[in-house]
Amino acid sequence: MTYDEFKQKGLSIDMTRGKPAPEQLDLSQALIDEAGSAGYRSRDGIDCRNYGHLLGLPEMRELGAELLGVPPAQVVAAGNSSLELMHDALAFAMLFGLPGGEPWRKADQVSFLCPVPGYDRHFAICAALGIRMIAVPMREDGPDMAFVEAQVATDPSIKGIWCTPLYSNPTGTIYSAQVVERLASMPCAAPDFRLFWDDAYRFHHLTEHEHASPDIVDACARAGHGDRPFVFASLSKVTLAGGGVAFLASSARNVQWWQQHVAVRTIGPDKLNQLRHVRYVRDRAALARLMARHRALLRPKFGVLAAVFDAHLKSVPGVSWTAPQGGYFVSLYVPPGRARRTVELAAQAGIVLTPAGAAFPYGIDPHDTHLRIAPSFPSLSEIELAAHGIALSVRRAIDELDPLPAS
Amino acid sequence: MTYDEFKQKGLSIDMTRGKPAPEQLDLSQALIDEAGSAGYRSRDGIDCRNYGHLLGLPEMRELGAELLGVPPAQVVAAGNSSLELMHDALAFAMLFGLPGGEPWRKADQVSFLCPVPGYDRHFAICAALGIRMIAVPMREDGPDMAFVEAQVATDPSIKGIWCTPLYSNPTGTIYSAQVVERLASMPCAAPDFRLFWDDAYRFHHLTEHEHASPDIVDACARAGHGDRPFVFASLSKVTLAGGGVAFLASSARNVQWWQQHVAVRTIGPDKLNQLRHVRYVRDRAALARLMARHRALLRPKFGVLAAVFDAHLKSVPGVSWTAPQGGYFVSLYVPPGRARRTVELAAQAGIVLTPAGAAFPYGIDPHDTHLRIAPSFPSLSEIELAAHGIALSVRRAIDELDPLPAS
Repeated sequence: MTYDEFKQKGLSIDMTRGKPAPEQLDLSQALIDEAGSAGYRSRDGIDCRNYGHLLGLPEMRELGAELLGVPPAQVVAAGNSSLELMHDALAFAMLFGLPGGEPWRKADQVSFLCPVPGYDRHFAICAALGIRMIAVPMREDGPDMAFVEAQVATDPSIKGIWCTPLYSNPTGTIYSAQVVERLASMPCAAPDFRLFWDDAYRFHHLTEHEHASPDIVDACARAGHGDRPFVFASLSKVTLAGGGVAFLASSARNVQWWQQHVAVRTIGPDKLNQLRHVRYVRDRAALARLMARHRALLRPKFGVLAAVFDAHLKSVPGVSWTAPQGGYFVSLYVPPGRARRTVELAAQAGIVLTPAGAAFPYGIDPHDTHLRIAPSFPSLSEIELAAHGIALSVRRAIDELDPLPAS
Repeated sequence: MTYDEFKQKGLSIDMTRGKPAPEQLDLSQALIDEAGSAGYRSRDGIDCRNYGHLLGLPEMRELGAELLGVPPAQVVAAGNSSLELMHDALAFAMLFGLPGGEPWRKADQVSFLCPVPGYDRHFAICAALGIRMIAVPMREDGPDMAFVEAQVATDPSIKGIWCTPLYSNPTGTIYSAQVVERLASMPCAAPDFRLFWDDAYRFHHLTEHEHASPDIVDACARAGHGDRPFVFASLSKVTLAGGGVAFLASSARNVQWWQQHVAVRTIGPDKLNQLRHVRYVRDRAALARLMARHRALLRPKFGVLAAVFDAHLKSVPGVSWTAPQGGYFVSLYVPPGRARRTVELAAQAGIVLTPAGAAFPYGIDPHDTHLRIAPSFPSLSEIELAAHGIALSVRRAIDELDPLPAS
């Protein structure tokens, strides 16, 4: 089939966002159907209907602690997405400063290191707050640490780095133990430097090999930088995307700082949703069983995408794609200058892709080579079709640049 | 009974916060017991389990619009408390500026007018953000408008005023139509001046005379200041205090501004909780019936408080208290310099009161005369006891200052 023939199908498939499919949400239907059975009284006798418990329901913090491998006192459970917690941590740092530091708004410049390709919503927070973003090359085993170390050692305006340590969005990168140790121990010119550690895919394995998320809280504490990590995680893609529970884990000092600022903002999170989640998710073993059911739904989608790319793009020079072992995304690389055009051509064929450049600070992919593909939400047959359309769009985009000589 | 005899009772009663009593939360038990029956599919076919709908579920915004008397497009439904929305509106103004204005953080000074006595959590947000607070005397019919008008006309650093227009916290004040018109139409030196209109007690009548909350959105629009009001309200004290739904209503331009900034923070609110609320609260008439049941529980508590004060404090010079027609608080006024001491004495008698001064900017009641009493949470018999203890504490505090000559 040619690109032009494919266009005639008149499809409309959205491959832009890492949204769970309805079948995945169905897995936690009991959270909705049996919500009444959770009642309102916590294990400790707390009336979850009323105000209070700023840092979360104690048993929810304990579950978070079990899942994240940190003490409950160092875990906050709040809100329905970790994005909110990341945003607020940065907003509080900007407005009020971190423990012992000046408000960032008083600094001439605040900079963040951004391994690329990365998560567009991380970059959007920085852009909104006027934080300068410095792109960092992503290697097989995490960010280019020689580059990172050189930057943070000499530039006190660098206040943090975005890290998605396991199955990175969108490259699927798994940070190595060495990279994690170096991030935990590297000397930083900014005394209030922070790792914004977005452990979004901690539970989201696509293979039977369940890679362990590195224990950054412990690594930083051992290295004498206990306040360095802000760990973010959530149950949004575990239970209900819009109605989950998010976690922040950090040092006791950072949690106290968080409490001080969040106390001005809220009288407490929705403890009823936390109670429902505690009683539904239960423990690490039950969560692992639930995640295995997610995997059973997601793996075929990643599989068909890879198979179609293999069939149509394998022999095309300059084209490659990732085979992630977890997470929600595939990165597709095309020859320089062809990513934006591929997105246009795919759109004309009825396939909506994330805008080219979205995975880079300021939306600028310097070589215009990267595409982020999100195969979770559409059905298996839609993904098969979309993958074909994307492959044809890539080939057409390449042909346009370097047409075969007319024979 | 003397104060010293009362102390022997060894009581422990908390009269500090405006929390609903368990019996009030029981009124909405169906929201918990029948949560499963609400399902997850909205009227419009939206899957409420997934991400999206940044400004709230459309039917929740419509219900908010019906309750607040504004068009649905001008209503945001988000979070579980209006406090969060107030905080974020101020934080966004500080970080990013309001439509057409500079970020407030770039100004040498930002000031807010604070009618006093007022709500301590309003003042806490200002204090955290470094906003200078200017106390405004509260009159029978709202803030002293001659003072307000003179201030805002000449001082461009004044960016807003806190208003609780109906059954003010903690004075029970009902703003008159004239005051509302003047607030809507007064010339302000700051082009980005805002009314922070906390309509917290819009639905919370303590008498059969259900006073109407003034339509400030319309009043401001008519006066040519359409962007002036930010209206906040919530269902927290209507349904479940910690698991309600909050509203922000304003001009289309302000809602667009809100959307722009909140889009960086979240992928959407918990639409499942919104769906449950839409199906439970239903409409204005059903809400009014629910509020009548709250009233039946709350009115006796305010009644017994007033009766005990009447019995023990009526003849004491310099002592008076409010008889609110709605809301959650009673203000008790004692002779100058005796409020703080009354709180100490009450604490020694096992009755925890809100700290004296809490209802004033910076926690400073200049004459130390005001006490805020919250009679909603304890039981009727506890309130009767507490009221007696408070009355004895007031009398003792006065006696200490001006002891009767030993006869």
